[in-house]
Amino acid sequence: MSNHTAAVIIIGNEILSGRTLDINTQEIALRLSEIGVSLIETRTIADDRTMIINTARELSSKYNYVFTTGGIGPTHDDITAESMAAAFNVRYVRNDEIYMILKNYYDKMGEKLNSAREKMAYIPESSKLLHNDATMVPGFVIGNVFVMAGIPNIMKAMLKSAIPMLKKGKVIQSQTLEVMMGESKIAISFEELQNKYKEVDMGSYPFTKNGIHGTALVLRSSNYNLLEKAFVELETIINGLK
Amino acid sequence: MSNHTAAVIIIGNEILSGRTLDINTQEIALRLSEIGVSLIETRTIADDRTMIINTARELSSKYNYVFTTGGIGPTHDDITAESMAAAFNVRYVRNDEIYMILKNYYDKMGEKLNSAREKMAYIPESSKLLHNDATMVPGFVIGNVFVMAGIPNIMKAMLKSAIPMLKKGKVIQSQTLEVMMGESKIAISFEELQNKYKEVDMGSYPFTKNGIHGTALVLRSSNYNLLEKAFVELETIINGLK
Repeated sequence: MSNHTAAVIIIGNEILSGRTLDINTQEIALRLSEIGVSLIETRTIADDRTMIINTARELSSKYNYVFTTGGIGPTHDDITAESMAAAFNVRYVRNDEIYMILKNYYDKMGEKLNSAREKMAYIPESSKLLHNDATMVPGFVIGNVFVMAGIPNIMKAMLKSAIPMLKKGKVIQSQTLEVMMGESKIAISFEELQNKYKEVDMGSYPFTKNGIHGTALVLRSSNYNLLEKAFVELETIINGLK
Repeated sequence: MSNHTAAVIIIGNEILSGRTLDINTQEIALRLSEIGVSLIETRTIADDRTMIINTARELSSKYNYVFTTGGIGPTHDDITAESMAAAFNVRYVRNDEIYMILKNYYDKMGEKLNSAREKMAYIPESSKLLHNDATMVPGFVIGNVFVMAGIPNIMKAMLKSAIPMLKKGKVIQSQTLEVMMGESKIAISFEELQNKYKEVDMGSYPFTKNGIHGTALVLRSSNYNLLEKAFVELETIINGLK
């Protein structure tokens, strides 16, 4: 049985304008790798209702899980929750549990629960909540879509709550050999090795260290015996090339 | 007349596994912003032939320009060039100009132009080349797709060669006001301002500085007079809230 699949949707004009570097994708990728969920693709789209709805529908029907980040705050440009309700054809309603959290908080602060603050209690009907350590306002799950905040530390906390809800798969382990030679010197033997070990995914990533070209040879597989065997063979090949 | 549109395709298993943080998207986003090309969406996909072909076809028909990064080196997992030829139904052929560059280089080094090295001369027929300052092997343009390396400093150099080939548009300028108050306090007035200035795109981005919550209010528009007017009004609103 193969691993469950996933996609990420980064929602935010600030990523597309270049203002903000997205670091959420990597965090999600790493956490999913750890539990054997296969991240197949990621997309970055604008805070645009039609685009959010279409992308959520397309990816949620294609993959087991979808993770979104961004657009769930109190301001007018936060339209993810309402768009998700539309994507799943459910009502966009005030969630009593979130509403009480907000009401208690602002009462205690002696501040008004204004309409912007109350907006944070509105989510698609029948969502599950993603309570977390970073903020009182939870993320939520609608269908197979996990809707999280865009701020990295809050996203991270919401993702932590989401992880136990996922079906774990066979974890892909990786072994990396860094060699101080160019890719083109290794390429032919490396391809022969790949052809020999079909179950091991082999990637080659050039880098520069102190002005010298090197290559990271990364072997990945959920068959650990085969991975180990291929890696030992790779070391022998590289020693022969030196 | 509205600005030309663009999409980015990041090709690489290493991004989807979390091994590598993608910083190419931000670089492309910033450079396109500067010349008034609108980045509409970005995708990250695996080194998978079918996925590369389908994504390239879909996005190149939807947008004026597509920029890809990754998968154009000498190793077996570098399949972008061949996939692009398939996507555009053209032959995957040895380019004489690149071949001579490689031949001269390896001759001078006293090394063999092996099949892996020669592979770097193979690109889709009728491509234009993206010569650059960072490497002797150029990127290339096929149809409206700009195919670039994944290594950030090489990608950057190839993008620099691509920029003069693009149709410049009206540059979107932005003004940012950072205020040390939470989003929810500003949200209502901010939305009223957005409704008043439809041509100015207003976004709100929370941050934390020394443990205190702040909000960056970002106004963006290609109508600079209106942008300035809205920004002055925003400052007045914020002063009234303090």
